[in-house]
Amino acid sequence: MRTRVSAALSAFLDRQEAEVLRLISPDLVEPAEALRSFLDGGKRMRPAFCYWGWRAAGGARADEALEQAALVAAASLELLQASALIHDDYMDGSDTRRGKPAVHRRFEALHRVGGWEGSPERFGAAAAILLGDITLTWCDEMFTRSGFDAARIHAARPVFDLMRSEVMAGQYLDVLAQSRGLSVASPAEILERAETVIRFKSAKYTIERPLQLGAALATGDAAETGALSVALSEYGLPLGEAFQLRDDVLGVFGDPAATGKPAGDDLREGKQTVLVALAAARADEVRLKLLREGLGDPDLDAAGVAALQEVIVDTGALESVEERIAQRTRRALEALDGAPVTDEAREVLGELAIAATSRLG
Amino acid sequence: MRTRVSAALSAFLDRQEAEVLRLISPDLVEPAEALRSFLDGGKRMRPAFCYWGWRAAGGARADEALEQAALVAAASLELLQASALIHDDYMDGSDTRRGKPAVHRRFEALHRVGGWEGSPERFGAAAAILLGDITLTWCDEMFTRSGFDAARIHAARPVFDLMRSEVMAGQYLDVLAQSRGLSVASPAEILERAETVIRFKSAKYTIERPLQLGAALATGDAAETGALSVALSEYGLPLGEAFQLRDDVLGVFGDPAATGKPAGDDLREGKQTVLVALAAARADEVRLKLLREGLGDPDLDAAGVAALQEVIVDTGALESVEERIAQRTRRALEALDGAPVTDEAREVLGELAIAATSRLG
Repeated sequence: MRTRVSAALSAFLDRQEAEVLRLISPDLVEPAEALRSFLDGGKRMRPAFCYWGWRAAGGARADEALEQAALVAAASLELLQASALIHDDYMDGSDTRRGKPAVHRRFEALHRVGGWEGSPERFGAAAAILLGDITLTWCDEMFTRSGFDAARIHAARPVFDLMRSEVMAGQYLDVLAQSRGLSVASPAEILERAETVIRFKSAKYTIERPLQLGAALATGDAAETGALSVALSEYGLPLGEAFQLRDDVLGVFGDPAATGKPAGDDLREGKQTVLVALAAARADEVRLKLLREGLGDPDLDAAGVAALQEVIVDTGALESVEERIAQRTRRALEALDGAPVTDEAREVLGELAIAATSRLG
Repeated sequence: MRTRVSAALSAFLDRQEAEVLRLISPDLVEPAEALRSFLDGGKRMRPAFCYWGWRAAGGARADEALEQAALVAAASLELLQASALIHDDYMDGSDTRRGKPAVHRRFEALHRVGGWEGSPERFGAAAAILLGDITLTWCDEMFTRSGFDAARIHAARPVFDLMRSEVMAGQYLDVLAQSRGLSVASPAEILERAETVIRFKSAKYTIERPLQLGAALATGDAAETGALSVALSEYGLPLGEAFQLRDDVLGVFGDPAATGKPAGDDLREGKQTVLVALAAARADEVRLKLLREGLGDPDLDAAGVAALQEVIVDTGALESVEERIAQRTRRALEALDGAPVTDEAREVLGELAIAATSRLG
C-alpha cells in the first residue's frame, strides 16, 4: 500500500507542478522540488489508517476505481502532514527533518548561494510559510478530487474538517504550553495540558480521524455516534496516544540515525511532553532545577542532554511512560477485538498498532 | 451586501469558535478573538466580486436560500484573504494592519504581559502562522458548506483551487523578486517580474477569479473558455491590475489614516512593485543609487521616505503608473459594456471598478 500511496502523491504533484510552472511561472521550480523532496520521506501512517478505515467499513478492493479513490484520498493526508511539519520545523527552529535540511534551511541556502539581497533567514522563513500554505490547500484539492463522487466527499467532510481544526488547535496549545513553561502551574496542570496537546495534536489527528475519515468514505456517514465510528475511536484514540508517547520517548532517547533528528532535540525545543511533565512532577528540588534550566535551552550540549535524560530515568518518568504505552496499546487491541470491522482489517490494524508503538524512528 | 457578508462571517465564526472551545480547549479563546477582530476590518472586495459574478451569470435574489448560499460562499473569500494577510504581515515584519497591531504583534504582547518563558517574538510568530493555517482551512470549510449542493460546489472547485494556488505562488514570486533585488537584473526584467507578481498575487486573485467563481456557482460550469468566463476575465484582469497599481501608489504615497499602514511602508519592506521598477528603469545614476540604498531599509525615516518619493515622482514613474491605472480601468469598463451579463450586474460592476481604482485606502 505504501508504494501506491507514494505513486498517488507523485501523480498529483506531477499534475500540480506542470500546472503552476506552465500557468504561473517557471520560477516556481524550486518550491515544487522542495515539496517533492519533502514528500519522499515519511512513514505514510495517516494514509495507512485512512485506507484501512475504508477497508474496515467494507470498502473492497474488487472495485478498482473506488479502491484507487480511497488510496488517493488517504494519500492526501500526507500533504496535511507535510504542511504541518514544514511550518512546525520553522516555528521550532529545527535544522533537519527526515535526515535532510528543513525547508526553511533549504531556502536560506538558496538565498546564500545566489548572493541575494536582504536576510537569508527571512527568505527561508517566507518560502517555508508559503510552501506550507500551498501544501495545505493542495491536501484539500487532492482529497476533493480523489475520485469519489461529490456527494460522498461532501458526506465525509465533517471528519476531514474537524481533523484539520484539531491538529492546528493542538499545535497552538503545544506552543502555548511551552511558553507557559514548568514554573507557574502545578504538576497536575502541566500533565493535563500535555495530555490535551497529545490528544488533539497527535492521537486524534494521526489515527482516530484518518480511520473515521476512511470509514465515512466507505459508508457515506460521518456521524460520530455510529457503532463503527465509536469502535474506531476506542481503538484509535488510545493507540494514537501510545504513538505520540513513543514519539516523545524517541524525541529524548532516540537514535538520530533512526529518527532523522539530532539526539535530545525535544529537550532543546522545550517540548512540554507527558514524559517531561511526569519527570517534573516526581523530581526533587535539585532535579527540578536541572530540568527547568535545561529544558528549552537551544544551546544544550551532549552533556546537558545526558543530564536531563538521567533526570527522566531516575524519576521513573521513562518507565511510567513505557507503561502507559503498553497499557494504551493493549486497550486499543482489546477494542479492535470487538469492533464491527472486516477480519482482514482487524488483522492489519492489529499489526499497525504494534508498528506504531514499537518503532525506533 | 457588505453587512450581509459580515453577518455571514460572524455566524460562521460563532459556530467554529463554539466548536473548538467546547470540543478542544477553552485556551483557544485568544486565537478565536484575534481572528474575529482581524475580520472586523477589510473592504470585502473579493466577496463583492464573487457575489456579483454570481448575479452577473444569472444568480437571482428571488431564490432566498440560493442567494444566501452565494453570500456565504462569497464571504468565505475573506478567510483566504485574512490567512494570507496574517502570514504576510509576519513575513514582512509589519507592525500594524487595518490600524491595529498585526496578529504576530498581538500574540507577542500577550506573551509579554503574561511574563511567559522563551521569546515573545517566537511565540508571536508561531501563533500567527497557526492562526493563518486554521483560517485557510476554514475558508475552504465555509465555502464547501455555503449551502450549494455538493455537485455545484464540486463543479466550481477548479476556479477555487486555481485561485488559491495562484495567490500563494504569486506571493512566493513577490518574495523572490524582493530577494533578487534591483541590482542583478535589467530594468525590463525587473518590470516583467513585477507584472507577473501583480497578475497572480492580486489581479487574478482579487477580481478575475472571485468573479469566475461566482459565475461558476451560478452556472455549474467552471470552464475558462465560455463566453461569460472570457468576458469576466477581460473585465477582471485589467481591473485587478489597476487595483494593485493603486495599492502600490498608496503603499508609497498613501495617508496612514486612510490606509491603516505607516507612510512609505512598502519602501521599507523593499517591495518590488511596478512603480518602483519604472522608477529604477528611468532613474539616472544618482537617483538609482538612492533607490537601491533606501529600498528595503527597515530603518528608513520620514526624510528617507520623502527622498524616495521624490525619485518616484521626478522619474515620471508615478505619472506613468497613474496612466496605467486609468488605461486598465478604461479597458475593463469597455469589456464590461459588451459582456453577456445582466444589466444590474453591469451597473454594479461598473461602480465597483471605480471604487477599486480611485480609493484612498
